[in-house]
Amino acid sequence: MIGGGASNEMTVESEKQALDVGREVRAAGATLYRGGAFKPRTSPYSFQGLGEPGLRILKKVREETGLPIVTEVIDTDTAELVAEYADCLQIGARNMQNFALLKKVGRIRKPVLLKRGMSATIEEFLLSAEYLLSEGNYEVILCERGVRTFANHTRNTLDLSAIPYVKRISHLPILVDPSHGTGKRLKVLPMSRAAVAVGSDGLLIEVHDHPEDALSDGPQALMPDMFAQLMKEVRLLAPVVGRTA
Amino acid sequence: MIGGGASNEMTVESEKQALDVGREVRAAGATLYRGGAFKPRTSPYSFQGLGEPGLRILKKVREETGLPIVTEVIDTDTAELVAEYADCLQIGARNMQNFALLKKVGRIRKPVLLKRGMSATIEEFLLSAEYLLSEGNYEVILCERGVRTFANHTRNTLDLSAIPYVKRISHLPILVDPSHGTGKRLKVLPMSRAAVAVGSDGLLIEVHDHPEDALSDGPQALMPDMFAQLMKEVRLLAPVVGRTA
Amino acid sequence: MIGGGASNEMTVESEKQALDVGREVRAAGATLYRGGAFKPRTSPYSFQGLGEPGLRILKKVREETGLPIVTEVIDTDTAELVAEYADCLQIGARNMQNFALLKKVGRIRKPVLLKRGMSATIEEFLLSAEYLLSEGNYEVILCERGVRTFANHTRNTLDLSAIPYVKRISHLPILVDPSHGTGKRLKVLPMSRAAVAVGSDGLLIEVHDHPEDALSDGPQALMPDMFAQLMKEVRLLAPVVGRTA
Amino acid sequence: MIGGGASNEMTVESEKQALDVGREVRAAGATLYRGGAFKPRTSPYSFQGLGEPGLRILKKVREETGLPIVTEVIDTDTAELVAEYADCLQIGARNMQNFALLKKVGRIRKPVLLKRGMSATIEEFLLSAEYLLSEGNYEVILCERGVRTFANHTRNTLDLSAIPYVKRISHLPILVDPSHGTGKRLKVLPMSRAAVAVGSDGLLIEVHDHPEDALSDGPQALMPDMFAQLMKEVRLLAPVVGRTA
Repeated sequence: MIGGGASNEMTVESEKQALDVGREVRAAGATLYRGGAFKPRTSPYSFQGLGEPGLRILKKVREETGLPIVTEVIDTDTAELVAEYADCLQIGARNMQNFALLKKVGRIRKPVLLKRGMSATIEEFLLSAEYLLSEGNYEVILCERGVRTFANHTRNTLDLSAIPYVKRISHLPILVDPSHGTGKRLKVLPMSRAAVAVGSDGLLIEVHDHPEDALSDGPQALMPDMFAQLMKEVRLLAPVVGRTA
Repeated sequence: MIGGGASNEMTVESEKQALDVGREVRAAGATLYRGGAFKPRTSPYSFQGLGEPGLRILKKVREETGLPIVTEVIDTDTAELVAEYADCLQIGARNMQNFALLKKVGRIRKPVLLKRGMSATIEEFLLSAEYLLSEGNYEVILCERGVRTFANHTRNTLDLSAIPYVKRISHLPILVDPSHGTGKRLKVLPMSRAAVAVGSDGLLIEVHDHPEDALSDGPQALMPDMFAQLMKEVRLLAPVVGRTA
Repeated sequence: MIGGGASNEMTVESEKQALDVGREVRAAGATLYRGGAFKPRTSPYSFQGLGEPGLRILKKVREETGLPIVTEVIDTDTAELVAEYADCLQIGARNMQNFALLKKVGRIRKPVLLKRGMSATIEEFLLSAEYLLSEGNYEVILCERGVRTFANHTRNTLDLSAIPYVKRISHLPILVDPSHGTGKRLKVLPMSRAAVAVGSDGLLIEVHDHPEDALSDGPQALMPDMFAQLMKEVRLLAPVVGRTA
Repeated sequence: MIGGGASNEMTVESEKQALDVGREVRAAGATLYRGGAFKPRTSPYSFQGLGEPGLRILKKVREETGLPIVTEVIDTDTAELVAEYADCLQIGARNMQNFALLKKVGRIRKPVLLKRGMSATIEEFLLSAEYLLSEGNYEVILCERGVRTFANHTRNTLDLSAIPYVKRISHLPILVDPSHGTGKRLKVLPMSRAAVAVGSDGLLIEVHDHPEDALSDGPQALMPDMFAQLMKEVRLLAPVVGRTA
């Protein structure tokens, strides 16, 4: 992932779907697999993820594809359970300032993917990372995923200037999530190219084999062939900007 | 508090300070006392509150002043401890979408004060309240405390239009926090009048007897005599807009 | 208007409509009449106002009602023509940084109503006023009309904290326009009360006798009876906050 | 410029400075020269540009370098004068909804560079372009230059997602201005790469030979050697994303 590669991102809905997507994204060159088992949802009545059965599916995806697994931790109670299954723990945008969760995950010795909050300044973002570092967990990967603005042509406004800014003042790697960052499938490919060109250390891309049936985030998910095309373009672009894909 | 009254808000720093402020705000007419024992702080190196000793101080404030205590719950682990001491549990802006905390507090039978997140839409705000309600806790009080915008003359932009909007589509009471909502002492009094006039069910006002020495939020804290003036003006205003103070 | 009163705001669509509304708002206590003859519209294909015939209608409204006329100046070419008919020249939000227009109007000796731009800081707002003052026109009235934010429950976010902030650092009077500031009829009355309570020197209220047929801004226009109710509430409120209505 | 190239942008301060920069950017491969003779400034007391003498200097730059000249039109009165000297007329962000200026420039038969307003939606941006088109001027070039948000690590937030969005719904070419879009010299090079990668038709780059002495926008201006480096990187990148540099 680090070095201009791309990983997929999806909500685990069934074993078959998770494995199918896993095989396809690995074939296309993904270097990690992000699947959501516990999902933080705006409404209590939305699909909340499969929970532990979802984690077991993710384990099978790793066994079958060899891809390391990233999955979201949504609370302190299930953090250790998630850590048993995952290679990397994601802390989502809504939890960027959930300081109890940051401290808890800081004490678990697994890499952490920390997403920028929807209205977080870069200073606040790095201070949240500091909560992880100050507990002794130094394997922190940041992720820009768009901020809230008045602009209505995308779901969020992807702030790519955050990448060179973070690179200048911090030693932490930073990825870009153009799927959440735009919320629109057709914007993911061009914004992925831009992310690589600006210096992002990697991409987090939502992929779904049948996005029209997705239980969450369907409109922003790429179909596997679009992901393959994205990987192809990233592989051409990365060396030009001094990265390996 | 409900009906146009005002409560104070402060971080508990010492027993003397807490009691002094408690006596002064009660004398001025406050109907509840908000004190922070566990503080969510942007930086892990900032003062994090006194913790349980702070809760014990709050208990003394209630014994001495008779004012009900509101204090913040920052994680699921300490929620029950806080509930033993508090009359009302606050969920802060940064935790508005901490769904695990919402569910936990929803299962505690104490009133909850839920603050709007810094970039939350009203729909998201009410859906977070729904997490509390759906666990069976119906005593939910909302609080508008300002949102993030480009405007730089205040710390946040207090969105008073949220009050009539929430009143129209929800049965929940809603307060205004002009202290966090402006971040500036001199704006608190006029914005408090505006909040009452727009239909707020109450105010949450930061008070400190020596704001220049405050361990957090000093620039927005009123001195006790300013709070007394505020209460006086609110008492004149409330009946004109059909409220009791 | 200054002193807590309210004025109406509308687009002139026909003589009958303009006179009807004029009589109704005067009866309700309005102290000036704002009507749009030249309209700045986002699309070149929208109704652009009646132009000079609209100005002649406004003149009749003044003759018939005795109310001074405020109307918008949209360019340097028609500024003097508009000034022949109007008692006060409005510069709209989109033109707040149209410096050529500011300089032109600064050289006309008529009061000016300057609206805050949609994403203007207070410093920029006051520097735009300075363009008028520096040309020798000292009769400048400011107007807060809402800023652009992510919030989607209102058309704009009315930033009432601008009022006490401007009052502190400037000698210029400032009004509030809750019609454009919220874009929603049912929010106009509560936000008007809030504007008076926060210290606004007046209100600018959109009124239309048949808002469902309005050629622009219908959803935010009050019907005359709602305007009368608003005036009644403002008259009760103003003296309590030290103003005359 | 169209095809992934880059142009410089500067305020004309003196003939020597303008010619020096002109020679350097041409040598580095710029395909047009943007210089400001009439400057729209937030404060009436800031340097307002050299005016017509500035236009004469720009004419000399074209004679000496062969580069076409882009310069800003700030009002209807001087539009024709500017058009006599310029090859392309710029309408700045603050004037994006100055409809009188749009109509005037729409009637001049010269290419127009229209910058997005600081809080303009894409729909509003394209409707402003429509004002030019509807007057018969079809040579309209759009320019994304950053929007206003809460983020404070850059002067504006450069919204690169606007590029693929505009490309999909409009036939108009669109450039990116990473100088105003970030306001910070060190962010200009990475954001330029991102702009090319996302599909921008060109770049508008502020260059100054002594930025520390610039009369405006110094902190965002590249020195000529940085501009040469930028051109080198763009030339490598453009063919990979299917463009010519």
